[in-house]
Amino acid sequence: MFDEKYMRAAITLAKKGIGAVNPNPLVGAVIVKDDQIIGQGYHKAYGGLHAEREAFKNLTQNAEGADMYVTLEPCCHHGKQPPCVEAIVEHKIKRVYVGSDDPNSLVSGKGYEYLREHGIEVHTHILKDECDALNDIFFHYITTKTPYVIMKYAMTMDGKIASYTGKSKWISNEASRYNSQELRNRCSGIMVGIGTVFADDPMLTCRLGGGYNPIRIICDTKLRIPLDSKIVKTAGEVRTIVAAGESIKGKINLDDKSDLESVINNRNDIDNKIDIKDKYNELIKRNVEVIFIEEEDGKINLKKLMNKLGELEIDSVIIEGGGTLNYSSLEAEIVNEVMIYMAPKLLGGKEALTAVEGQGFEEPDLAAHFTLKEVKNLDGDLLIRYVAK
Amino acid sequence: MFDEKYMRAAITLAKKGIGAVNPNPLVGAVIVKDDQIIGQGYHKAYGGLHAEREAFKNLTQNAEGADMYVTLEPCCHHGKQPPCVEAIVEHKIKRVYVGSDDPNSLVSGKGYEYLREHGIEVHTHILKDECDALNDIFFHYITTKTPYVIMKYAMTMDGKIASYTGKSKWISNEASRYNSQELRNRCSGIMVGIGTVFADDPMLTCRLGGGYNPIRIICDTKLRIPLDSKIVKTAGEVRTIVAAGESIKGKINLDDKSDLESVINNRNDIDNKIDIKDKYNELIKRNVEVIFIEEEDGKINLKKLMNKLGELEIDSVIIEGGGTLNYSSLEAEIVNEVMIYMAPKLLGGKEALTAVEGQGFEEPDLAAHFTLKEVKNLDGDLLIRYVAK
Repeated sequence: MFDEKYMRAAITLAKKGIGAVNPNPLVGAVIVKDDQIIGQGYHKAYGGLHAEREAFKNLTQNAEGADMYVTLEPCCHHGKQPPCVEAIVEHKIKRVYVGSDDPNSLVSGKGYEYLREHGIEVHTHILKDECDALNDIFFHYITTKTPYVIMKYAMTMDGKIASYTGKSKWISNEASRYNSQELRNRCSGIMVGIGTVFADDPMLTCRLGGGYNPIRIICDTKLRIPLDSKIVKTAGEVRTIVAAGESIKGKINLDDKSDLESVINNRNDIDNKIDIKDKYNELIKRNVEVIFIEEEDGKINLKKLMNKLGELEIDSVIIEGGGTLNYSSLEAEIVNEVMIYMAPKLLGGKEALTAVEGQGFEEPDLAAHFTLKEVKNLDGDLLIRYVAK
Repeated sequence: MFDEKYMRAAITLAKKGIGAVNPNPLVGAVIVKDDQIIGQGYHKAYGGLHAEREAFKNLTQNAEGADMYVTLEPCCHHGKQPPCVEAIVEHKIKRVYVGSDDPNSLVSGKGYEYLREHGIEVHTHILKDECDALNDIFFHYITTKTPYVIMKYAMTMDGKIASYTGKSKWISNEASRYNSQELRNRCSGIMVGIGTVFADDPMLTCRLGGGYNPIRIICDTKLRIPLDSKIVKTAGEVRTIVAAGESIKGKINLDDKSDLESVINNRNDIDNKIDIKDKYNELIKRNVEVIFIEEEDGKINLKKLMNKLGELEIDSVIIEGGGTLNYSSLEAEIVNEVMIYMAPKLLGGKEALTAVEGQGFEEPDLAAHFTLKEVKNLDGDLLIRYVAK
């Protein structure tokens, strides 16, 4: 007997993989016989068993004639794991209920086909929206090979992210801050501009117990990041990528050091005395990965940076930049989602900092347009999510 | 037989008075006999019959032994109308169901008392929250004698009310704009700063068919409003109040005109040639009411202005000012509610205009705090309402 509750159970299982499976999808599977769950599993970690095989591994009795509920179309190709459809056939499953289709158009539907050819009844699109929602990141990454980019900020009711004196502690409440830690747990990468490093000296780690740290990515065209910043000092423990401009790369390869000093514009006293090649070497020594990205108008080309991060298998990036990086990201059209924590406060201030600054768009019609996705009340703060139009 | 649906009918009736009854409350009444409505009415206009008497006027049969549902405690004092409780007794109503208590603590409960003394069964607080919600304006006004002040603005997801080029058409969508016209219909007054008159030359009227125009109030310390502004030109049709500073009043009474020119700082070419006394006379001639309010740091004391508007029986004011007036209003602590229309757009711009500007509060803890009241999706825009904490 079909029952939606089993798909809900599979969805709940899938979520246990949050933070551990990137850039793989979150998948859950439940095997049901005589209205009883006889096996269940989820994709636990990148490179590990698929959800279906986890469920088979956990069987409490023979699965012959049973139903399987799985949140994503079972794979039919040899990847890191053998195809799941074969395991389903081997275990003589009778009916398969699936939520999401495989987003890879070359593969999509082939799993269903294989199963049907082997006499298995297949029902698709069960709780499809909920199943799809598990994998907005994966679906984007697998089809574009670039990270799913979430611009996230906490603001007051008038769009301020810090007062005119630069104070931002705390705009949002505890519930919002906890929620944003969950986001760090879920995403592979977190990106800020060098300005944020200078202003806040942040850690950008996930402070949830047992949470996964995102890879820290610093947009730092001129390699100005201080060696004594918290980020550099902890690069041995938390993977850290500094994205510098291509023009710096040239300087590093120069033999003559005489004209290098001028390249450095480091506000940090100690670092001011080090030339750019030494700076590069010092960063490498401290486990910072430095990548070089093409520049545009003296700033890193964010589109190219996203391509590069995609190659590095970073499937998702939270942008926690200030207004300048946020505006550059919009201009570069790399933003897939905007998450706003709006506190019930008005800060005011002509000189206060707002969420998106830079030059700005010329008029409302030319603004970056989004579509409302979700509104949630977090203890009086609002979490408002938008997706790119 | 008691049935909530009759109170709902009374609430629906009450709303028909929106825009017409200020500064009186919205009230609806329904008379029920044998599970049939035999009379209904609402308070139609300031100074007109109360809802209870309207309902009696519309009786289709004798009301003896009938039930009455009324959204607000019936009055027991002689005001513009004789007390409703007497009419209820005269008509031999058996039971009275009431939503809201009279907010005037001197009177509250006396209506119930009178009815009970005359043998009528009284049930209070029926759908109280919904009934109370009808009259947030009235309850505030009657207890404070100052208008209920709603700060209203349309902004992008990053708090901008206009682009860096000054363009604000259109931030919000049609549904939001329609909704804000309903607000103009509901409120007695609408206030802007003189800067908005210079920038936008607005009409500030209600563009709903059959809608009521709010009284226009311009904060204009130095009486700079151009005689050829749309507001001055239409002051004969739509009541218009210009609030000027006390210091100007002194100048107008001076006989010697020699030093008056310096007072005027009018950006309008024609007006520049007129001295302040003439300007005042020209405004009066055009049906503009000029009131003089104490100043503080060269700006109108908004708290005193609100007291004055309360004396003028203006029970509610929408502030549609730019960021400067909005900040001054927060500083003066006159804001009771904030209504934000948030469009799904990011405008960006360090120089773009934000909803609240001025100096600003020093840090998040010192910001003006509010409580979330309502979130509504208006065709993709969000209407977010907050009340003062």
